[in-house]
Amino acid sequence: MKKHLSLFMFLLIAGTALAQSPEAKLKELKIELFTPPAPMANYVRAVRTGNLIYLAGHGPTRADGTNIQGKVGRDLTVEQGYDAAKQTGIALLSTLKSEIGDLSKVKRIVKVLGMVNCTEDFKDQPKVINGFSDLMVAVFGEKGKHARSAVGMYALPSNIAVEIEIIVEVE
Amino acid sequence: MKKHLSLFMFLLIAGTALAQSPEAKLKELKIELFTPPAPMANYVRAVRTGNLIYLAGHGPTRADGTNIQGKVGRDLTVEQGYDAAKQTGIALLSTLKSEIGDLSKVKRIVKVLGMVNCTEDFKDQPKVINGFSDLMVAVFGEKGKHARSAVGMYALPSNIAVEIEIIVEVE
Amino acid sequence: MKKHLSLFMFLLIAGTALAQSPEAKLKELKIELFTPPAPMANYVRAVRTGNLIYLAGHGPTRADGTNIQGKVGRDLTVEQGYDAAKQTGIALLSTLKSEIGDLSKVKRIVKVLGMVNCTEDFKDQPKVINGFSDLMVAVFGEKGKHARSAVGMYALPSNIAVEIEIIVEVE
Repeated sequence: MKKHLSLFMFLLIAGTALAQSPEAKLKELKIELFTPPAPMANYVRAVRTGNLIYLAGHGPTRADGTNIQGKVGRDLTVEQGYDAAKQTGIALLSTLKSEIGDLSKVKRIVKVLGMVNCTEDFKDQPKVINGFSDLMVAVFGEKGKHARSAVGMYALPSNIAVEIEIIVEVE
Repeated sequence: MKKHLSLFMFLLIAGTALAQSPEAKLKELKIELFTPPAPMANYVRAVRTGNLIYLAGHGPTRADGTNIQGKVGRDLTVEQGYDAAKQTGIALLSTLKSEIGDLSKVKRIVKVLGMVNCTEDFKDQPKVINGFSDLMVAVFGEKGKHARSAVGMYALPSNIAVEIEIIVEVE
Repeated sequence: MKKHLSLFMFLLIAGTALAQSPEAKLKELKIELFTPPAPMANYVRAVRTGNLIYLAGHGPTRADGTNIQGKVGRDLTVEQGYDAAKQTGIALLSTLKSEIGDLSKVKRIVKVLGMVNCTEDFKDQPKVINGFSDLMVAVFGEKGKHARSAVGMYALPSNIAVEIEIIVEVE
């Protein structure tokens, strides 16, 4: 009987973990979303058409409004670039949450264009953009797996280290 | 009675301004659309799927077929880059009108990728692409507000100053 | 009577050619698709939403898993760049076939972003990406004609010569 109860408890806990909301997962990862700053120019952070939301290119903006800046391969290591891509993911999720209210409405992270501010001989853009992709899979599981391009840019606004734009399917 | 008439005239004029068609607005801005030149290669200027139109990357092509060329930050100032982005917007609207006939069918400018041919230390890509974004908002009002990325490119075809691709939702 | 038979045979053959499947066309072009390698990072090769398939950025990967590398304008000629773009198209079709099983389901190649790893003074990105576009039109006919951007990149992953991402509409 005790054995059956243990199994029952295990299944209950496992089920709860599987059903964990993106917001709960973010809390577990000790990630706090923030109020996204207003766009720097005459555009908006996100536009919805049908059940797709197109998010504007975001940079590695911190909650205090500052950005991670510099070129990967010269000013930043691959690891620092990874962290910048993760921070860009946090900024994108902040905008997404402010748009749809509840991240559980996300059906799929569909498409990602990850742009790395880097040197000409830098070849590890995928390792940098993994900072974003790993966060999406950690927060959304299978729904977080996306089609992606990761490429090297000559220059980005305000010398930010990474800029990422995404398309999200919602319910 | 005269007062009431003035108020009536004011409301009539205000209402007309609000209901102004994109074509009328373009005329007011003294902007003339033109017949877009054929693509330089084996592709088309626009493809529609459902109610979305994907426009090919356009450059700052003038009505006579010439382009604004050069790198912003070296050959062109930010203001000249702004003008190039505006001209690119005129080229895109020319293609869009040739596709849908009537710009009043535009429901939303959804997504914009603005690419600036610039120097490595150039940081004001958003100020350049504003030349495009300001035109869209001037012509379409709220419907013209889009999600956008503005980034710096190493090289563009024929050394054009700006290349922009957009997604438009139509009725 | 013989004349009528010839005409009949001609129409039969012409009809067959028009109805030729993309797979038959690839065979005629002596192009073999291959099993696409697993992505280098935490993402997937393609995501479908509605009747659109977003394909991740692909490089000029050969069947043996090696890539065409180098910068066009320095390491590679325009012709070699064209071949790299064609090879990228073969890699994309390989992924597409593994996703939908039968390339006859393709309704339209909708949108293409073609990125060329090139020198700063290189101006012929369209001629390079034609290697991809010409293949699409050869395989799919009118359905293969797409909206496209062709731009010059500072750096691409593993120094690949070309990276292309596409959106495909399917039945």
